[in-house]
Amino acid sequence: MPQKFTVTPWEVKGELDYEKLIKQFGTKLLDEKILNRLKKHTGKLHFMLRRKIFFSHRDFDWILDKYEEGEKFVLYTGRGPSGHTHIGHLVPWVFTKWLQDKFDTELYFQLTDDEKFLVKPLSLKETTNYAMDNILDIIAMGFKPKKTHIIVNTLHIDKLYRIALKVSKHLTFSTVKAVFGFKNSSNIGIIFFPSMQIAPCFLPSEEKGHNVPVLIPAAIDQDPYWRPARDVAPKLGYYKPAQIHSKFIPGLGKEGKMSASKPETAIFTTDKPEDIRRKILNAFTGGRETAELQRKYGGNPDVCSVYKYYYFFFEEDDKKLKEIYEDCKSGRLLCGECKLRLIKKVEKFLEEHQKRRKKAKQKVDKFLIE
Amino acid sequence: MPQKFTVTPWEVKGELDYEKLIKQFGTKLLDEKILNRLKKHTGKLHFMLRRKIFFSHRDFDWILDKYEEGEKFVLYTGRGPSGHTHIGHLVPWVFTKWLQDKFDTELYFQLTDDEKFLVKPLSLKETTNYAMDNILDIIAMGFKPKKTHIIVNTLHIDKLYRIALKVSKHLTFSTVKAVFGFKNSSNIGIIFFPSMQIAPCFLPSEEKGHNVPVLIPAAIDQDPYWRPARDVAPKLGYYKPAQIHSKFIPGLGKEGKMSASKPETAIFTTDKPEDIRRKILNAFTGGRETAELQRKYGGNPDVCSVYKYYYFFFEEDDKKLKEIYEDCKSGRLLCGECKLRLIKKVEKFLEEHQKRRKKAKQKVDKFLIE
Repeated sequence: MPQKFTVTPWEVKGELDYEKLIKQFGTKLLDEKILNRLKKHTGKLHFMLRRKIFFSHRDFDWILDKYEEGEKFVLYTGRGPSGHTHIGHLVPWVFTKWLQDKFDTELYFQLTDDEKFLVKPLSLKETTNYAMDNILDIIAMGFKPKKTHIIVNTLHIDKLYRIALKVSKHLTFSTVKAVFGFKNSSNIGIIFFPSMQIAPCFLPSEEKGHNVPVLIPAAIDQDPYWRPARDVAPKLGYYKPAQIHSKFIPGLGKEGKMSASKPETAIFTTDKPEDIRRKILNAFTGGRETAELQRKYGGNPDVCSVYKYYYFFFEEDDKKLKEIYEDCKSGRLLCGECKLRLIKKVEKFLEEHQKRRKKAKQKVDKFLIE
Repeated sequence: MPQKFTVTPWEVKGELDYEKLIKQFGTKLLDEKILNRLKKHTGKLHFMLRRKIFFSHRDFDWILDKYEEGEKFVLYTGRGPSGHTHIGHLVPWVFTKWLQDKFDTELYFQLTDDEKFLVKPLSLKETTNYAMDNILDIIAMGFKPKKTHIIVNTLHIDKLYRIALKVSKHLTFSTVKAVFGFKNSSNIGIIFFPSMQIAPCFLPSEEKGHNVPVLIPAAIDQDPYWRPARDVAPKLGYYKPAQIHSKFIPGLGKEGKMSASKPETAIFTTDKPEDIRRKILNAFTGGRETAELQRKYGGNPDVCSVYKYYYFFFEEDDKKLKEIYEDCKSGRLLCGECKLRLIKKVEKFLEEHQKRRKKAKQKVDKFLIE
């Protein structure tokens, strides 16, 4: 089928059609049936589920089967440290924290400083430094220190290498070429790397000495890793890892996901009030050319990056979100006012985040995998 | 040019023509000029140099330049632990020990349990166990404990991974395909592996914080690794590693190198006297059909695997070796007698080796890299 969008672990571009993506990737929609089942365990669903920001899965029903049978699952997620953390990165983390809290689970959190070194014009020192910097944001999210195990690939390679080798013996160049689009000109580090991102799927089972169900909450661009992971799992005697996939939080520009490589379209966790203000004031909106026209015809929140910020992160209350939507549509709420409200919310969030981030510096050792 | 032999890190077969190999690999002959220069530092040359068992090099003259300028080199060699150690493996080790003693150098010794797992039908547990077993033989050779650093790849991956990543970023699949003959059906572990064998070339420089010349004494089948190693070195700011290459010790069969995969053609360091006796008595020789014919026409030591044992390992004295050769040729020395003499020598060597091997069990920690 003709595609107007591209989604790989290293590139997300074009106008995403998530329904097509589900078909293309062979995942399942998080439908009402499974959400109702989840609700029995968690009470009120997280707004990211209600809004279908987490919208797709593989075997999440099986995770619930296991849980109901008394077999606890662990969570695994990660981050590619190619720069500072921005709000887009926090979307799956907020949800991951909710899962950790609701199910009282262990969490393995991988930072792939090796990968980012291999694919970006960055030194290994730089990507490891970014990893250590990003860890402050992870800790600031409030994950449970005793149940959270952060892995920096180059620092904790001794935990992963033996498992990665076992994975790699089952993956040929042909396979990773087909799944990830590697070429003959790809470097041999990145060709091996899928084994490194797959390895933590099996680390909990290795550490506990028995099979442990693993659930991976992550943006859907990471899905290519889990397909070979699921193929290899039974060959190594492990459970197949399950996934729950999010959409991307869009940038403040016109299209694509929020990206550290376009700094003006992303709000970083270390941004100062003046940065926040400038970026949001310059954001792409669904407003009209003039205030007058907008009062008359209304704005278009469906294409508006400011509205999406409320939707994905800054307005958890569905009722209030609906008000913003309708006030925009009707012309009651103009872009200037709407942006100023968002600026306040973002400033407040980041002020608190930055305090927690500062305190996190003393806690890093408690979170690193032992 | 048409080849009647194949030499890769994973396969040596056919009748070797070492002169052609030097041309094919682009290495240099260890000629009289360089040997005379070496002699000034070592005194009498090791029999493996006199007999051209170590016969080829890259930049060994540069290593001597550096040494003469007061810059000490370190040695790096290794072993692929796919089975127990046999006499063939000891050939380069004996010579490496001589170099360590003569130049009082540090030695890095890598055991590639990862590689052997990736290319053989062995579990990772098995190859790591073989590595730990092989270490006993390495220690039994008498290397200096304070100056010898043994690396087991999966156990000491934290020492190598960051360097291996830097190497891997400069090597494409096309390159390793051309150098090692990898295919699209090769697993992604072995595709990455060259980075792991190259990494110790640069480890001494990393550890010391300044550039250190490295000399690699090893059989010539390992040479493919050092070509990309030398290409990458200047890109990472390191000296190019130098090499000194040995021929292979032939098996007790008709052709090919001694191999653990044909156990009756190899004498293992743990073989009992009855094994040694049986294997040598069954060895392929250059003898005639009957003792009578041999007395009359003489034998052919040039094709004889028993003679080669004396030549490569068990008769260091050139004069005595020449006697064996001539007594065979002339028909004075028959195969039975010649084999019995070799059996005695091998038994004596292994009896002592096995004693040292037993004591080595207490010393392993002293030899493992810190």
